[in-house]
Amino acid sequence: MPTQPFDPVLELSDLVDGGDASAIAAFLHDLPPEETPYTISHITEERRTQMFSLLAESEPEFAADLMEHFDDAHAADIVGDLEPETAAAIVDEMDSDEQADVLGELPSEDAEAILDEMSPEEAIDARRRMRYDEDTAGGLMITEYLAYSVDQTVEAVADDLREHGDEYGEYEVRYIYSVDADHKLIGTVPMRRLVMSPRGTHVSKLILSDPIVVTVDTHVDELEDLFDRIDFSSVPVIDEAHKLVGVVQRHAVQEARGEAAEEDLAKFGGIVRGEELRSMPLASRAGRRLSYLLPISGLLMLSASVIHLFIETVEQVPVLAMFLPVVAGLCGSGGGQAVAVSMREISLGLIKPADLITVMGKEAAVAFIDGVILGVVLFLIVWIWQGSPVMGLVVGGSVPLVLITAKITGGCVPLLLRKIGLDPAMASGPVVTTVVDLVSFLVVLALATMMLASLTTPTT
Amino acid sequence: MPTQPFDPVLELSDLVDGGDASAIAAFLHDLPPEETPYTISHITEERRTQMFSLLAESEPEFAADLMEHFDDAHAADIVGDLEPETAAAIVDEMDSDEQADVLGELPSEDAEAILDEMSPEEAIDARRRMRYDEDTAGGLMITEYLAYSVDQTVEAVADDLREHGDEYGEYEVRYIYSVDADHKLIGTVPMRRLVMSPRGTHVSKLILSDPIVVTVDTHVDELEDLFDRIDFSSVPVIDEAHKLVGVVQRHAVQEARGEAAEEDLAKFGGIVRGEELRSMPLASRAGRRLSYLLPISGLLMLSASVIHLFIETVEQVPVLAMFLPVVAGLCGSGGGQAVAVSMREISLGLIKPADLITVMGKEAAVAFIDGVILGVVLFLIVWIWQGSPVMGLVVGGSVPLVLITAKITGGCVPLLLRKIGLDPAMASGPVVTTVVDLVSFLVVLALATMMLASLTTPTT
Repeated sequence: MPTQPFDPVLELSDLVDGGDASAIAAFLHDLPPEETPYTISHITEERRTQMFSLLAESEPEFAADLMEHFDDAHAADIVGDLEPETAAAIVDEMDSDEQADVLGELPSEDAEAILDEMSPEEAIDARRRMRYDEDTAGGLMITEYLAYSVDQTVEAVADDLREHGDEYGEYEVRYIYSVDADHKLIGTVPMRRLVMSPRGTHVSKLILSDPIVVTVDTHVDELEDLFDRIDFSSVPVIDEAHKLVGVVQRHAVQEARGEAAEEDLAKFGGIVRGEELRSMPLASRAGRRLSYLLPISGLLMLSASVIHLFIETVEQVPVLAMFLPVVAGLCGSGGGQAVAVSMREISLGLIKPADLITVMGKEAAVAFIDGVILGVVLFLIVWIWQGSPVMGLVVGGSVPLVLITAKITGGCVPLLLRKIGLDPAMASGPVVTTVVDLVSFLVVLALATMMLASLTTPTT
Repeated sequence: MPTQPFDPVLELSDLVDGGDASAIAAFLHDLPPEETPYTISHITEERRTQMFSLLAESEPEFAADLMEHFDDAHAADIVGDLEPETAAAIVDEMDSDEQADVLGELPSEDAEAILDEMSPEEAIDARRRMRYDEDTAGGLMITEYLAYSVDQTVEAVADDLREHGDEYGEYEVRYIYSVDADHKLIGTVPMRRLVMSPRGTHVSKLILSDPIVVTVDTHVDELEDLFDRIDFSSVPVIDEAHKLVGVVQRHAVQEARGEAAEEDLAKFGGIVRGEELRSMPLASRAGRRLSYLLPISGLLMLSASVIHLFIETVEQVPVLAMFLPVVAGLCGSGGGQAVAVSMREISLGLIKPADLITVMGKEAAVAFIDGVILGVVLFLIVWIWQGSPVMGLVVGGSVPLVLITAKITGGCVPLLLRKIGLDPAMASGPVVTTVVDLVSFLVVLALATMMLASLTTPTT
């Protein structure tokens, strides 16, 4: 018998059953990081709860670090299974932005129970942050930053850093912030300016001349553009009263955008709100998917009713039933390509609703070329297969016409949906598919009806 | 007549026609950053070339900063339109990772022409970097870092920083690296440790005890996992000989992942390689899209041939032509949902090919619930619309069966494609759609054939 290969899931299960928190921590510490989410999500739910309970007691900081391997909904799932007291020990050790995100995903009574058990300062901070939208600077900022009164010297700051260096592990330490007595932000000092300056220099002399500041309401899209333009790795966040309340780090913004792009992919595939994972409860998964499929079935019935209009033509030429889905499917794919390019150009900031005419022109040109080529190909295939050049003409001849409609629709729908405030990632697919189905059934069957005499006369 | 609203595209066009580089730079500097890519991409190509030629002469650094608003292919497009000498002036000023990315997107003779005009050191560096895959630490690193011999003191380092502070603007300055006489990496010193230390301390005393180093070949996926786990904002990169060659910054890794997620969305929509923008030449766009649509038309013909097998049933019950696309479309959407969830779980590291059975079970359960509900709905709609409960049974009864197949296929295909090394974002859609079309046509027509007697007898 071959020796058992190393199986981290089995290994971790055994360690959890053994109940030794430091052995679990040591094992997970040595595990390649890309294996961590997989391994933790593949032990049984009971063992996972047990594992985090053990770690919460002796290694709460490590347990908090582990949570960063999961997205917010998933981390909330894990935290929600723990006793409030245990959960609080872990949440206490999370970065302040992570705290609000994870607690925000929990049902509010569960979040409250955990907040009640947290250390008072952390809880106050987390509650305040949960009021901010997670797509704003307030939701993305961390509140661990270094602020010093404006009249301090480099020496005093350096002494404080030396003294409290250990506590500042999670802090934003690439900049220090100069504040007045009311904690209003006076300016930003890069850490490297401190290094370069004589010890007696006043912090006020080192402040950046061109300060960049955002407010708690600044949206993540604006933050992304800002970080694209500047070289700073973080910017200070102020509230309505101009008080310094936190720091948004570049990586927090980019993580948020990355998660948004991944959720867009899921929405594009028809997952409502984009956040399903298979570890979620069956009923919620089935409901989420059904809420997309039910309207789809209505739209499909609408398209089917076009075929109903021409049912006599289908009766006389039943072979049309074969080619209706071919034209609709092909042109639907072509429309999907135009949707994908528009979504990408929207996210790169290259098109706006005002560009509809340009988009239509560019899509029509591509569709004309590809439509003629695909039309000729289908004409030949259908002619050879069915032995009827007229049937070939009906199928192949519809393609350019339908593909132009499909690509123009596909290119414009995401822009129009965005303009009216709907989510293009979610709604573009069904809208375009329905239009393309309707048009392709209409064009193929209208052409077939016009040529009905030649279609029903055998050509052999 | 209302006054003309501010139109940055017109404004910039006028400025370019005016030919004053510093006025152009001032205008673009004041433009909200989210408007920048839009505005620059909407002036005519001639004006854009003219604008960058003007900026290259007097403001090459600003021109290089502007390029960061565009993705690599787009920036290469703009650079490729310039005279090699002009392009070289701008590329010289780009971050070293950006240089290789943009030059790598150009045809090699164009890239060579630009490299020949660049400053010799920058060109040598860029050539070396172009050898690395852009998905590796070698491709993502910057080569602007601070390295000091191991026997230097904090004072000597601080003096150097103070003296050359201006040149170090683009450098990674959050860490300094300690190297030996052969430029082999000895260790990393965080800038904040320098601040906290007396001036006479040797750099060697400040080196981090638990150094994190990657090699030029480390893949972006590994880098992402690494940065998830550690708090550092950058890690040093060494070559085969352990020499320090660059620094990978956290934001470079996250930008690469964000671009990959956006390209996945485009691939999911049927855009080969995921990188089309409408500013690209028509022939290349048409060709790229056609190379996806041609195989799709073949797959659709394959599905159509199933209908051909049952053509006699369709002849006797032509109304089936209406409902074949309904069942196929509905279950195709359901399969797409399963694809989207699998893609998301793969990218989050939550499933592997070994989990096929679990995925199948979870998808079957969801599909059973949604399939029965949707089946009942379709049964009722068809019964009422067509006045035939038997036709309702054929359509509604097929749904659970086909949806279970669709969701199992959709859940598994991305995993299987990944296992055999194909790109799941590109190929999952067509594979799943084809399987679902085949199965839905087969099931609906087989059921109809079995119940042919009741279907052809009017129930009224």
